[in-house]
Amino acid sequence: MPLARIQQSFSRQGLMTTLGARLEKVELGFVEIALVPTPAVSQQHGFVHAGAVAAVADSAAGYAALTVMPEGTGVLTAEFKINLLAPAAGERIVARGRVVKAGRTLTLSQADVFAVKGGEEKLIAHLTATLMNIVGRDGVVD
Amino acid sequence: MPLARIQQSFSRQGLMTTLGARLEKVELGFVEIALVPTPAVSQQHGFVHAGAVAAVADSAAGYAALTVMPEGTGVLTAEFKINLLAPAAGERIVARGRVVKAGRTLTLSQADVFAVKGGEEKLIAHLTATLMNIVGRDGVVD
Amino acid sequence: MPLARIQQSFSRQGLMTTLGARLEKVELGFVEIALVPTPAVSQQHGFVHAGAVAAVADSAAGYAALTVMPEGTGVLTAEFKINLLAPAAGERIVARGRVVKAGRTLTLSQADVFAVKGGEEKLIAHLTATLMNIVGRDGVVD
Amino acid sequence: MPLARIQQSFSRQGLMTTLGARLEKVELGFVEIALVPTPAVSQQHGFVHAGAVAAVADSAAGYAALTVMPEGTGVLTAEFKINLLAPAAGERIVARGRVVKAGRTLTLSQADVFAVKGGEEKLIAHLTATLMNIVGRDGVVD
Repeated sequence: MPLARIQQSFSRQGLMTTLGARLEKVELGFVEIALVPTPAVSQQHGFVHAGAVAAVADSAAGYAALTVMPEGTGVLTAEFKINLLAPAAGERIVARGRVVKAGRTLTLSQADVFAVKGGEEKLIAHLTATLMNIVGRDGVVD
Repeated sequence: MPLARIQQSFSRQGLMTTLGARLEKVELGFVEIALVPTPAVSQQHGFVHAGAVAAVADSAAGYAALTVMPEGTGVLTAEFKINLLAPAAGERIVARGRVVKAGRTLTLSQADVFAVKGGEEKLIAHLTATLMNIVGRDGVVD
Repeated sequence: MPLARIQQSFSRQGLMTTLGARLEKVELGFVEIALVPTPAVSQQHGFVHAGAVAAVADSAAGYAALTVMPEGTGVLTAEFKINLLAPAAGERIVARGRVVKAGRTLTLSQADVFAVKGGEEKLIAHLTATLMNIVGRDGVVD
Repeated sequence: MPLARIQQSFSRQGLMTTLGARLEKVELGFVEIALVPTPAVSQQHGFVHAGAVAAVADSAAGYAALTVMPEGTGVLTAEFKINLLAPAAGERIVARGRVVKAGRTLTLSQADVFAVKGGEEKLIAHLTATLMNIVGRDGVVD
């Protein structure tokens, strides 16, 4: 049941609600999160702020990792890097996270972020994230 | 007048308002931004979301770069990397951005992020960002 | 003729000769470089040094970018990030670089690095690199 | 005795010998490694190859981390990111690694790399590295 597990965790991420982000798809090793550009998530030139793009990309990458963790194991982002390839503007911003390699201690995920406009998708950002697998630490589950 | 320039730009960053972030200090090559942890910026375990930490750190690093740019020149984040060193929790989250090297095309900035609790500061994240200097592109000024 | 252009440039990279690295494949937007693990490229535990892994991955990513640049345009690495997923050991280390997005000023490439052992390939590292396109700077061509 | 421990480990890094790199200074939480630019470590335009710069910076950052680890604990680089700020050319390339934060599982280090020319130092690269602390794994000590 990766879906229910991820949905429950996602609904507790206050930031995702604040940004207006929605969990769109969950598969084993894959998670998609979408965001509608509004002034509430903008930077000074009207594009979606790199921080908001990074937030949905980080969540997509992190939840992709969580889908492959055993029950009772959580993940925390240890680091991520994001390349911003084009201004984030359009009708929707879609982040697709995938597990690259799941390890015992660390998991590498990546996320591609697309801007959707007139039915066309354009790659606007690419993120790689290292997640630390957390077992048996109070409050850090899922 | 780096202060007025940065303040005006910062006030147009809708995301900063949405996150409750405040511009605290502006000097030549240095910018400080603070955030009060609330459920609205949280991840699933109650800490401040890595994306919100990254957002204020990226803004601090980017505005530090902007303080050293000539009038009429804007900056866009080309990429950033953030290491998350400890859970982001406390009374305040403070991001301090500094220019490492300003170049003709690219500028490297960094930001240290601290959690403040009981008067003590703890380093919780470190970001490095590459900013692209933008001249003469409509709408990308300051 | 991407092949000849890349081969000529590769043969001028003294470090590649020093490391014993070989240019194995060149296609539009894709370059493969291989390395045979020897004590000369090792770190202290006998694995291939992260710096040597990074060197071949960076060259593969950078040359992949060069294959899509017009004649007379060179590239310089502005930054790269590498995640090391498993110790680099085996009969051969193979780095495969690909262009993710070619821009006017900056190009994003990535490289996957595999260790080959008994005919099997294992992903050991993943790199993303930002290349700066260089036009009309003396000595920085190809 | 951080010095003896680091020296012994450094002398086993075949790549450092191959590159002509020298361990110059070891203090608690700090390590300096230097390299003399030669054609053997060059890229195609005659500068020191980003991979060679990264190799000495990674070693400096990793050994800085090792100086603060208890005996019997080793470190492996999990990931690093390097920004290359100026062409690596000069009489000497000096990498100075420092621990930013030592954790139970992961340690963050950074390294600044300088080119020395006519007695002047110029910052040419900045690296941040995540080291994984390794205890009780055969062959991964110091």
